[in-house]
Amino acid sequence: MRQFVVIGHDVPTDPDAISLSDIPGAGRLDLLCRCVAAGVFLSHGIRERVRVHLVVADEFTVTFDADSLRHLHPDERNVAARIRDALDAQDDAIGHMPADVSPGVELRRMGLEATLDRVLDTPGTSSASADPTLVQLHEDGDPLVDAAPPTDPVFVLSDHNDFAPAERDLLADRAERRVRVGPELLHADHTVSVVHNWLDTDGYESY
Amino acid sequence: MRQFVVIGHDVPTDPDAISLSDIPGAGRLDLLCRCVAAGVFLSHGIRERVRVHLVVADEFTVTFDADSLRHLHPDERNVAARIRDALDAQDDAIGHMPADVSPGVELRRMGLEATLDRVLDTPGTSSASADPTLVQLHEDGDPLVDAAPPTDPVFVLSDHNDFAPAERDLLADRAERRVRVGPELLHADHTVSVVHNWLDTDGYESY
Repeated sequence: MRQFVVIGHDVPTDPDAISLSDIPGAGRLDLLCRCVAAGVFLSHGIRERVRVHLVVADEFTVTFDADSLRHLHPDERNVAARIRDALDAQDDAIGHMPADVSPGVELRRMGLEATLDRVLDTPGTSSASADPTLVQLHEDGDPLVDAAPPTDPVFVLSDHNDFAPAERDLLADRAERRVRVGPELLHADHTVSVVHNWLDTDGYESY
Repeated sequence: MRQFVVIGHDVPTDPDAISLSDIPGAGRLDLLCRCVAAGVFLSHGIRERVRVHLVVADEFTVTFDADSLRHLHPDERNVAARIRDALDAQDDAIGHMPADVSPGVELRRMGLEATLDRVLDTPGTSSASADPTLVQLHEDGDPLVDAAPPTDPVFVLSDHNDFAPAERDLLADRAERRVRVGPELLHADHTVSVVHNWLDTDGYESY
């Protein structure tokens, strides 16, 4: 199971503050939408055993589970509408019980730390063998080409903002691995594509 | 100079047929927009020496030149509006003389073959040393990890459609290299990110 946690610092938690005609205006929601598309879609198909968790303003987490997603399209407007639906359902999320938004989409009343607790402590897949490994993307990390891909990686990415100090500390504390994707600083969605390719090819070994 | 030629088979050439509220409805224009963003943008910056050429219905080619682009944002709506502006200027494109749409954006009255002639035969950069190499992305190609990156690669990608037979023949005839990005069939924009990473890292050698 591959999991991507993407932090949307500035995305409004009020669904009415999200206009599908100005998706970037909702705290650069366009970037989060492209992260979902890069995370779950293949050409004419959808990946298996992938989850994308969008942490919204450290208050809610919207999870897209590729294994049960239905009727999602890769364009920003379609994904943004689904995220808005999820925020619309926030009253149904009681405690840490999720609100069911649509097949494969859930919303939980959780910030980053609670989401990492959940994702890292609960086996990500039905099989108990899952051993989620938090992999921090960091400029001082091991080059991808020198790093062996973990079986159940969890990557944490930030929107257009740098990680906040508290987030950096949390990641430094909980990350078991640090990797670097390349010499350039990429958009989060482009990083997701590069990381998927590293995993698809078993660390650039099988094509 | 890196160049990406993306074929939009179904994109309408009539700008009035493009609605910014239904970008996928314009022949999956959303995919072409994400290819532009993946091609030219870095985190908080824009790449140098990159051009993305969108071949629209084999009749027009809209070129985005990262070195002179201004005021472009990575969200689909912003890029789609710029492509629509370019199609709006088609009457100013006389013969093979481009219509200047906005800084870094031109439209030419050219299909795929004429665009490849132009891109491959005219040195892509001011320096005459440029030697554009057409690299075909193909499932029988050399794995990226085993291939040495050319200095001035030109990649050709298709939208959600397969290459048409005539396009396949043209590519087979003119491609000097064939590479494979991985075992999965990716969206064109995700492929652009993977290829950029291969080039950024000098074939996964420098990070």
